[in-house]
Amino acid sequence: MSCVGAHTAIVAVGDELLAGELADRNGAWLAERLAALGRPVSEVRLLGDDEPHLARSLGELCERHSLVITTGGLGPTLDDVTRHAAARAAGCELVVDPAVLAGLEEAHRERGSAMPASNERQALFPRGATVLANPAGTAPGFRVPVGDAWLVALPGPPSEMRAVFERSLAPRLDALPGGGTHRYRRRLHLFGLSESEFADRAGDWMRRDASPRMGVLAHSGILTVKIEAAQGEGDEAEVLVAGRLADLRRRFGSRVFGADGANLATVVGEALIAGGTTVAVAESCTGGLVASKLVAVPGISAVFREGFVTYADQAKVERLGVDPDLLREHGAVCAPVAEAMARGAAERARARLAVATTGIAGPEGGSSEKPVGLVWFGLAQDGALRSVRRAFPPRGRRAVQEWAALTALDLLRGALESPRDA
Amino acid sequence: MSCVGAHTAIVAVGDELLAGELADRNGAWLAERLAALGRPVSEVRLLGDDEPHLARSLGELCERHSLVITTGGLGPTLDDVTRHAAARAAGCELVVDPAVLAGLEEAHRERGSAMPASNERQALFPRGATVLANPAGTAPGFRVPVGDAWLVALPGPPSEMRAVFERSLAPRLDALPGGGTHRYRRRLHLFGLSESEFADRAGDWMRRDASPRMGVLAHSGILTVKIEAAQGEGDEAEVLVAGRLADLRRRFGSRVFGADGANLATVVGEALIAGGTTVAVAESCTGGLVASKLVAVPGISAVFREGFVTYADQAKVERLGVDPDLLREHGAVCAPVAEAMARGAAERARARLAVATTGIAGPEGGSSEKPVGLVWFGLAQDGALRSVRRAFPPRGRRAVQEWAALTALDLLRGALESPRDA
Repeated sequence: MSCVGAHTAIVAVGDELLAGELADRNGAWLAERLAALGRPVSEVRLLGDDEPHLARSLGELCERHSLVITTGGLGPTLDDVTRHAAARAAGCELVVDPAVLAGLEEAHRERGSAMPASNERQALFPRGATVLANPAGTAPGFRVPVGDAWLVALPGPPSEMRAVFERSLAPRLDALPGGGTHRYRRRLHLFGLSESEFADRAGDWMRRDASPRMGVLAHSGILTVKIEAAQGEGDEAEVLVAGRLADLRRRFGSRVFGADGANLATVVGEALIAGGTTVAVAESCTGGLVASKLVAVPGISAVFREGFVTYADQAKVERLGVDPDLLREHGAVCAPVAEAMARGAAERARARLAVATTGIAGPEGGSSEKPVGLVWFGLAQDGALRSVRRAFPPRGRRAVQEWAALTALDLLRGALESPRDA
Repeated sequence: MSCVGAHTAIVAVGDELLAGELADRNGAWLAERLAALGRPVSEVRLLGDDEPHLARSLGELCERHSLVITTGGLGPTLDDVTRHAAARAAGCELVVDPAVLAGLEEAHRERGSAMPASNERQALFPRGATVLANPAGTAPGFRVPVGDAWLVALPGPPSEMRAVFERSLAPRLDALPGGGTHRYRRRLHLFGLSESEFADRAGDWMRRDASPRMGVLAHSGILTVKIEAAQGEGDEAEVLVAGRLADLRRRFGSRVFGADGANLATVVGEALIAGGTTVAVAESCTGGLVASKLVAVPGISAVFREGFVTYADQAKVERLGVDPDLLREHGAVCAPVAEAMARGAAERARARLAVATTGIAGPEGGSSEKPVGLVWFGLAQDGALRSVRRAFPPRGRRAVQEWAALTALDLLRGALESPRDA
C-alpha cells in the first residue's frame, strides 16, 4: 500500500482491544494531538498480543512512516509483548536499565511493599533506546530508531500515555524530519438538534472540498461540530475557522452550549458557580445521574446543595412533599409530579434552582399512553415552576437515562441563560 | 504484508475516530463476535472520511481477506462517504433502491415530519449489493462482492450496527468460504486486586503458549480475566476453560464477583432483588454515582428505596441525622460520619441495607492527613454498622469517584454474601 503524505501511524496493542473487553481511547487522542503538531495520522491499527505478528507489523509500518507510535503492552505480565516486538523490529536485543529497575523498587518500598518479581520486566528496553519517563505510573515508555523512522512505545493506561507523550515526546518531535502542515481545529457543541436537522440547516458548509472543513457527530442529544483548516504562514486558518464559528453561533443561537473541550455538565456547573446560584436535583428515572454529573465538576460544592434520588413513590412524598393524591391520580410520570418534585427539592435544600426528572427508562413499565423513553422534567427557579415533556428513542435503559440526564442539565443551562423565560 | 491465517478485517470509518471526538466501540464488539463465529479478526483499522483513501484501503484489504466489514459513514451528510468508497472498491456505480427510499419517507411521515432532502443519500447502494435492513435506525447496511471477498458496510451507531449484524449478517456467514476454528472464551471478574498482585498469584497460567490462554485487564479496581481455547470437534475447549475457571475461583474466592457479561452493579442489583433486600444509598464524594449505577439495573425498583446525595454538611445533618458536633470535630471524611450517614439512610428510607461514601475526590481539598483519594465508607446492615477506609490513586476527580462508587457496590456485595461478617 502506498501512503502518499502519510507521516504517522498508531498501533494500539492488546488482545483486549480485539476482544471486546476494552475500547481503545489512546489512538484517537494521539491522532488529534499529532495532527495539531503537523504529524497527521493516516491510520490507527489495533493489533493483538502476538509478538511475531506485532513485530512484523511494526517493521512494515516503520518502512512507510516517519513516526510509528504504539500504546499498551508494557505492563508486568507475560502477555505484555510490546517491548519484545519493538526490539525484534529494531533488530536488537533487550537489556535491563539499572536506573529504571532501581526506581521501580524504590516506588514499591515507599508504598511499603516489596516489588513483585513480575515488575522487573518493566525495566527491559531495546538496546539503544531512549527511555521516556512515566510520571504517572510504573511503566516507562521508550523511543528507538528503526531505519529512518522513530518507533515510540507508550504505556497503555490513558493517563500514563498522555503524561509520557506530553513530557517526553511532544517537545522533541521537531527533531524528526518530515513534519507537515499544522492544522487548526475548533469544535462547537449544540444540544437538542438531530444530525439531520443540523445537516438541513448547515449542510452547505459540510462539503468535503469546503474550507474550512466541517464535520458533525451526534451523541445522546449532543451535536459536536468540528471546523478545521490547514495552517500556513499567516493566521488565515484561524480567521477562516473563527468566521465559521461565528456563522454557526448566529444560525443556531442558544442551541450552542460550548466550544472545544467543553462538556455540558462543566458548562452548567461553572455557570452555577460563577453566578453563585444554589442548586438541587430531584431524580426518579435518572437515579442520581444528574447529580453525579454536576458533582464531577471541581468546585461545585460552593453551590450544589443536595440531590434527592426519590425512586420509590413513598420517597417522593416523604422527602419532597409530593401530594400522594397526585401520584394516585396521575401516576409518577406527569407534569404536576415533575413540578412538585422540583419545588420540593428547591424548598427543602434551600436552593434557588432545582431540576427534577420522572419518566420511564424501561425496558418494562411502558404503555401506549406512556411509552418507554417518556420523561417529564420539572424546573423550579426562584419559586416559579414549569415542566417539559420529552420522548427519547427507546434505545435501552441506560441510553434513556443518559439522554434524560443531559436534558436536565440543558434545562438548568437554559434557566441560567434566560431567567425571565424560565 | 502477508496475513497468514487472516480471515477478517474491520474498518471503522470517520474523521471523528481519528480526531479524538469519539472512541470506536464497534471494532472491538465485532471482533469478539466474529472470533466466536470462527472468523478471527487480524486487525481493526481506523480511517478518515476520505473517499479515495478509503476506497483504496478497502480494495487492498479485500484482496487479502475473505471478509472486510466497515462501520460508519452511512449517515445523511456529505462527510458520509462509505457507500461511495465501497462502490469504487467494487468497481460499480451507486443506484437508488426504491424500496429503501419509500421506507425512509414512510418513517418520517409516521413521526409527522417531512424527510429532509439529505436523507435520500441513505437510499444509495453499489449496484448488485444486498441491502441489510436496519431495524434500529434509518441507515440500512449492505453487502457487495469484491473479488472473492465480501465487503460489508454496517451503520456507525453501535445499537444499529449490532442489530444489522445479528439480523442480516451473522446468520449468513456460513455461506462465505474460509471459516476457521471457532474459539471458546469465558471471562471472570474480580474486585479489589491489582494487576501485579494477580500476576504474582496466577502468572504461571498466563504464558502465551499456555492452553487455555489467559489474559488480564485492570480498570477502576475491577480485574477482568479472560480464558480461551480453540474449539475442535469435541468439547475439549469447554472442559479446559471450565477447569481453569474453577481453579481461579478456588484461588481467589470471594474476590470473584461474576463471569462473562456480568458487571458489578448488575451482580449487586440482582442479588438485592433476588433476596428482596431493601437498600438505600447516602453519597457525599460520589455524588449520586452509586445510586445511578444501581438504578441502571432493570427491576431495581422492587428494592431500591432512595438515594441521599448529601453533598453539603448541612444536608448530612438535616437529611441523615448526622450529629453536627461530629462534623465539627472530625470533619466530614471519617469513620463515624460514614457510619452515621449509612445509619441515617437505612433508618429514614426504611431499608435493611445502606452504604455511604464520604471522601476527597479532588483536585482541591486534600491535606497530608487526608489526601486526595481518601474515602471512608459506611455500611449499615439490619441495624449493625461498620466502616472501611480506602486510599485510591489520585488520578483525577472522576477516576476517584468511579473507583469509590464501585467499592461501595462491592461492599454491598460482601454484605449480601456473608451477612454475619458485616
